[in-house]
Amino acid sequence: LVDGVVLNGPTTDAKAGEKFVEEACRLIMEEVVLKATDVNEKVCEWQHPERLKQLLDLEMRETGEPHHRLLELCQDVIRYSVKTNHPRFFNQLYAGLDYYSLVARFITEALNPSVYTYEVSPVFLLVEEAVLKKMIEFIGWKEGDGIFNPAGGSVSNMYAVNLARYKYCPDIKEKGLSGLPRLVLFTSAESHYSMKKAASFLGIGTDNVCFVETDGRGKMIPEELEKQVWQARKEGAAPFLVCATSGTTVLGAFDPLDEIADICERHGLWLHVDASWGGSALMSRKHRKLLCGIHRADSVAWNPHKMLMAGIQCCALLVKDSSDLLKKCYSAKASYLFQQDKFYDVSYDTGDKSIQCSRRPDAFKFWMTWKALGTLGLEERVNRALALSRYLYLVEEIKKRDGFKLLMEPEYVNICFWYIPPSLRELQEGPEFWAKLNLVS
Amino acid sequence: LVDGVVLNGPTTDAKAGEKFVEEACRLIMEEVVLKATDVNEKVCEWQHPERLKQLLDLEMRETGEPHHRLLELCQDVIRYSVKTNHPRFFNQLYAGLDYYSLVARFITEALNPSVYTYEVSPVFLLVEEAVLKKMIEFIGWKEGDGIFNPAGGSVSNMYAVNLARYKYCPDIKEKGLSGLPRLVLFTSAESHYSMKKAASFLGIGTDNVCFVETDGRGKMIPEELEKQVWQARKEGAAPFLVCATSGTTVLGAFDPLDEIADICERHGLWLHVDASWGGSALMSRKHRKLLCGIHRADSVAWNPHKMLMAGIQCCALLVKDSSDLLKKCYSAKASYLFQQDKFYDVSYDTGDKSIQCSRRPDAFKFWMTWKALGTLGLEERVNRALALSRYLYLVEEIKKRDGFKLLMEPEYVNICFWYIPPSLRELQEGPEFWAKLNLVS
Repeated sequence: LVDGVVLNGPTTDAKAGEKFVEEACRLIMEEVVLKATDVNEKVCEWQHPERLKQLLDLEMRETGEPHHRLLELCQDVIRYSVKTNHPRFFNQLYAGLDYYSLVARFITEALNPSVYTYEVSPVFLLVEEAVLKKMIEFIGWKEGDGIFNPAGGSVSNMYAVNLARYKYCPDIKEKGLSGLPRLVLFTSAESHYSMKKAASFLGIGTDNVCFVETDGRGKMIPEELEKQVWQARKEGAAPFLVCATSGTTVLGAFDPLDEIADICERHGLWLHVDASWGGSALMSRKHRKLLCGIHRADSVAWNPHKMLMAGIQCCALLVKDSSDLLKKCYSAKASYLFQQDKFYDVSYDTGDKSIQCSRRPDAFKFWMTWKALGTLGLEERVNRALALSRYLYLVEEIKKRDGFKLLMEPEYVNICFWYIPPSLRELQEGPEFWAKLNLVS
Repeated sequence: LVDGVVLNGPTTDAKAGEKFVEEACRLIMEEVVLKATDVNEKVCEWQHPERLKQLLDLEMRETGEPHHRLLELCQDVIRYSVKTNHPRFFNQLYAGLDYYSLVARFITEALNPSVYTYEVSPVFLLVEEAVLKKMIEFIGWKEGDGIFNPAGGSVSNMYAVNLARYKYCPDIKEKGLSGLPRLVLFTSAESHYSMKKAASFLGIGTDNVCFVETDGRGKMIPEELEKQVWQARKEGAAPFLVCATSGTTVLGAFDPLDEIADICERHGLWLHVDASWGGSALMSRKHRKLLCGIHRADSVAWNPHKMLMAGIQCCALLVKDSSDLLKKCYSAKASYLFQQDKFYDVSYDTGDKSIQCSRRPDAFKFWMTWKALGTLGLEERVNRALALSRYLYLVEEIKKRDGFKLLMEPEYVNICFWYIPPSLRELQEGPEFWAKLNLVS
């Protein structure tokens, strides 16, 4: 007893805790895993926020709740959550349940590792290295580097913008942007909003994101890109990066990488490809042509948590440079973590390649799925998703139904259509029609 | 059959998949959860990287592996991983196994949600709101806002620096830093390296981080801070933020918040408190005085994944402002996600408060632990940790052992000591002694 606190013995009753985990696992198995493929279950038991607050017992009190009550709470959390595993969950560029990545994620949570140095996370560091190497192979680079980041493709894009900026002018790391000419970057009008977030967060400013016009299918027009680069130069700005998109969020469009790479070469610009969504097509020998020219990119963002079902989050940023650019750009050399006189090769320590310190082993879940399905199984997953979208379009499943108007033939798995309610079906397409249709939600 | 791909039926054999998950859960239970409290188990079965690569079958092949082989792989992953739950794991400011947060994390992985809009993540958004509100109460603010970010206290600090910069000059979001006076920020010499990472990533530059001298206990000296602010002003730079630390990484020092807050008020500077490590002391009525004055901060970073054992990652950034500053500063207004004409109150949608899109519900695991232990249980956890460190120091457990030299009386739970190998024990303290001691590892 010191300071009135009992020091001996465990903080919690381990036996009771273990029993609780076992019971909860049974509940998760029954209520989530076994029901995942059942189309008779609801995707969501919708409740308005104020009503849901009443239904859930959210309040945190002075004293704790007994295990049986906690299990009821778990049940309620599951009941009122959206079932993203459900066969009819269509929403956010991911869906479905992958049993293998799920197991890997359970292992991760049970071991609770943090990936920064080899000594504290030996297995997960080696797994990450192996997965990155394989992804680099699929991009078509001979070598490269990379990192999984837990904050999404948005932050992979930020990493890339910062790397490109560092490459353009390494002094910025120490001196900052104050007093420098205006740095500008280029991305298509259909690209993900994270390029704006990156510009704002990194101190570049959203006004310095030049949005390049796209064609009718949502692809960046290379001639427009080059015009804008010239224009920026003329205005005294300093172009340093082009972000091409492979798989835009709404239309699923793929920018013409080879033509964009030519322009980047001519102007000495870093080419980043945001393939967060479309990168998975690289796994398919049939569809990888959508990303033709991607090997010419300097960096690529690719999220296996989307079509490849690795679980939120699983986001890789891959970098062609193999001169340790990531480490040079991101290192802060914290001496309490990254000692240089360890008894193993410290190049395995990845902690100084990232903007953060603790980091979850997100590569591991993708690795487990890859081990389970093999490259061919992953390829089949991609082929199937694209075949399903073509079925929907070609076999005219949508057209057969009244009140659906398709936007265009899909290039990827995004199928864009309008739902036209009965009240508008007789109206001719014109300003009035479109104004009214836009109000339908 | 379309494009040679079978479209009907499930992609994987659900029955076999479910059985695999069940068997893996049994393995996780036996090999991780039940062994967590067993001191007879090893913390780590150490292998050098090249040897470990041989022991693990890392290669991803064309075809997948059968379930029994995958289970062996899982076993190997567990065997060679560091057991962060082990009673003798001392390393990275976290340790131990919390059964309640573990269950919450299993639920999260099974449901695989992403927290950006209420419609897709109703329960987890409300839970996050409730947890943030409670944390704000413990800081002592009447109201406030906040967000959990999955990339650690480092990125919480970045969020704060960016917010402070936005508040200082909202135009930076659009215009960037080019052409502006040099922005400078202040932090103690003992603060976390993430402030340098933030300055570099945000385009401020590491040279513009002014490191303020600390006293013999590692606390920022307020007079030195004020001198540096005046000095920066004299040089034509633009001070905008002071980062005080509550619980430094190495010494566990707490900066004097009230005196620093006075200086911030006098100079109109944003006060950010990096309480990633020390924030948990707020849960203890006995020890919360360590953070006396924290209610005067404009923002606070606090990681319940450390002393409160919520699991990696669980990192909150809390903001005193309640005029929607987070949303104003971070929004990119992506129209495909954040429609303003939904059938519920869209102020529940948090996706535009963060630098990322997909986001895991990290608040949920902390909530579950809080529900299970109650505020009093969390308080006990903190009191116990501090009592244990005082036991080690006061009852002189370390002093009793030969060859240990204590640095100073601990203020928090960090106990800093030197291990003096037998060969140095007879040597007098002097330059030679310290040079040799520094080489011990």
